[in-house]
Amino acid sequence: MSELNNDRFLRALLRQPVDRTPVWMMRQAGRYLPEYRSTREQAGSFLDLCKNAELACEVTLQPLRRYPMDAAILFSDILTVPDALGLGLYFEEGEGPRFRKTVRSEADLAGLNSIKADDDLAYVMHAVRTIRRELNGAVPLIGFSGSPWTLATYMVEGGSSKDFSRVKAMAYDRPRLMHQLLQLLADTVTDYLSAQVRAGAQVVQIFDTWGGALSTAGYREFSLAYITRIIQRLPCEADGRPLPVIAFTKGGGQWLEDIAGCGAQAIGLDWTADIGSARRLVGDRVALQGNMDPAMLLASPARIREEVASILSAYGVGGGHIFNLGHGITPGVNPDHVTAFVDAVQELSPEYH
Amino acid sequence: MSELNNDRFLRALLRQPVDRTPVWMMRQAGRYLPEYRSTREQAGSFLDLCKNAELACEVTLQPLRRYPMDAAILFSDILTVPDALGLGLYFEEGEGPRFRKTVRSEADLAGLNSIKADDDLAYVMHAVRTIRRELNGAVPLIGFSGSPWTLATYMVEGGSSKDFSRVKAMAYDRPRLMHQLLQLLADTVTDYLSAQVRAGAQVVQIFDTWGGALSTAGYREFSLAYITRIIQRLPCEADGRPLPVIAFTKGGGQWLEDIAGCGAQAIGLDWTADIGSARRLVGDRVALQGNMDPAMLLASPARIREEVASILSAYGVGGGHIFNLGHGITPGVNPDHVTAFVDAVQELSPEYH
Repeated sequence: MSELNNDRFLRALLRQPVDRTPVWMMRQAGRYLPEYRSTREQAGSFLDLCKNAELACEVTLQPLRRYPMDAAILFSDILTVPDALGLGLYFEEGEGPRFRKTVRSEADLAGLNSIKADDDLAYVMHAVRTIRRELNGAVPLIGFSGSPWTLATYMVEGGSSKDFSRVKAMAYDRPRLMHQLLQLLADTVTDYLSAQVRAGAQVVQIFDTWGGALSTAGYREFSLAYITRIIQRLPCEADGRPLPVIAFTKGGGQWLEDIAGCGAQAIGLDWTADIGSARRLVGDRVALQGNMDPAMLLASPARIREEVASILSAYGVGGGHIFNLGHGITPGVNPDHVTAFVDAVQELSPEYH
Repeated sequence: MSELNNDRFLRALLRQPVDRTPVWMMRQAGRYLPEYRSTREQAGSFLDLCKNAELACEVTLQPLRRYPMDAAILFSDILTVPDALGLGLYFEEGEGPRFRKTVRSEADLAGLNSIKADDDLAYVMHAVRTIRRELNGAVPLIGFSGSPWTLATYMVEGGSSKDFSRVKAMAYDRPRLMHQLLQLLADTVTDYLSAQVRAGAQVVQIFDTWGGALSTAGYREFSLAYITRIIQRLPCEADGRPLPVIAFTKGGGQWLEDIAGCGAQAIGLDWTADIGSARRLVGDRVALQGNMDPAMLLASPARIREEVASILSAYGVGGGHIFNLGHGITPGVNPDHVTAFVDAVQELSPEYH
């Protein structure tokens, strides 16, 4: 493997000193970029794009050609795991992800495929290796997975959900079945992320998109407990360096003290959290990643710069901050506004270090 | 006006001693009740039902005939206000509320009707008076309004929204216009709630359904500031008693200390908040309303009872708690499960008082 030319992101994740605040964006390879839309068209469906290592590598690198991001993130989807488990993922135009089968009973659970990520998700590992090679040490590569709870919501509901009524009814009324499914997912995700690390991922992020839909007690029992178990069993190193793990629960702002104890080196903050308060609460234990409102990218470049300044100032002096959005960038954003965002972080952050 | 036979709800809102924890449910007059669906059919559209005082009164009273609720809430919709301002509210099947016009410019703002709630929302006041008469002192009547920010999201977006891109772009890029709209809405809501109190409402609740979509700074500036201004100008009394105000921000769990300073006597908690922590944080200043996950009503009666016990125990001994769901009851709930919920509060709460 080639030497890493820019380790600012890795250092910040471990709360080591850096020259400026590193920056990347969730969903930075995405529809707001015309070159992404063009590659996507070439690939066929969204899933075809995920499964084609060359094209997945191409879209992963596209944002890095435009912007001096400090990290690349594997282009993939959190639902590759339930798909490999046998649920049959497909996308309906304007409807989001759907599954042909669901998991709502012991029989459904027993009917899931037994999988090995290296074999059954080989196309993901192929993409990781391809991207690592093409990155050629420019910046670190982030691997990722959905959290067990988040994956379970899609598997039980059969797709996206507004109020999570089916999966919550299962959690509340059939906790044993729910825990069996979550344990299976925790094992599968541990294997999946470990395989990504072996293939070349230098950081992993666990996306808990729907943990915030739970009650406090429910979050601890059904989401955070399984994130914790995964992290305990991940490899400690990647490429001879400590492997940093980022845990991101959207809507988890009330639970930061709990999340800070899950074993992750860094916590992702959505845009509703105040990053200054978060640092005072848990900044002695974990790095913080975030947290500009993705909708701020719809505002003028001058306003975006003001907001970057305000978040940098709220976090304050010292390391342990990775600048990011509080959730994925949305398709309607003007790519020039991303330039304003990244430039502002680059230009305004050195004085804090 | 007739004497109030059950003032448990009013007393709890003012943190006075009670014999047991009072209970009601947000959206308790709703589609989960077959008698509601039947009246709704008789009325025609949802808006027709809101605008017919006799039928609005009928559906308001329906849940009280089934369950020993400690409060009634006016049957209406938060979007009656933008409708009266001239935006033309309508409902598309399965699509939620829509407006024929939107507010996206100074000209749109200038084009809004100048309204007086007593005249332009006379049908609401007629419903309040009718319900008060029919309640005949059984329990207090809650009036309500959407918060200025929540109303503004619908007025700018033209209906429901997933990411609030238009209204946030306005807030971030054109804050002066946003504040003009919010100030107009704060004035209008103050007049609207004051008129409801004159017509007979004994408590008012401000529903800030979408405050939780904002950043911490944005929430303070665009939502909480206007809730505070409204409360400062509401009448202090209703029927010779102090008028309690309930402020409910869905997703506001991170901001409870701020919300506790808005002047409301009680804060509504959604289901994600831990009511025990919330009490320790702000229970010396405000009463707390909530906060069972509405999805818990999909579980078995035994599980519902367990959850009620757990919330009562988390809140602990003493007054200042009004039992409720953390958001509105959903259409698919079995009405017998509501019986289990209300019975559990009635039977399990006396030991805490």
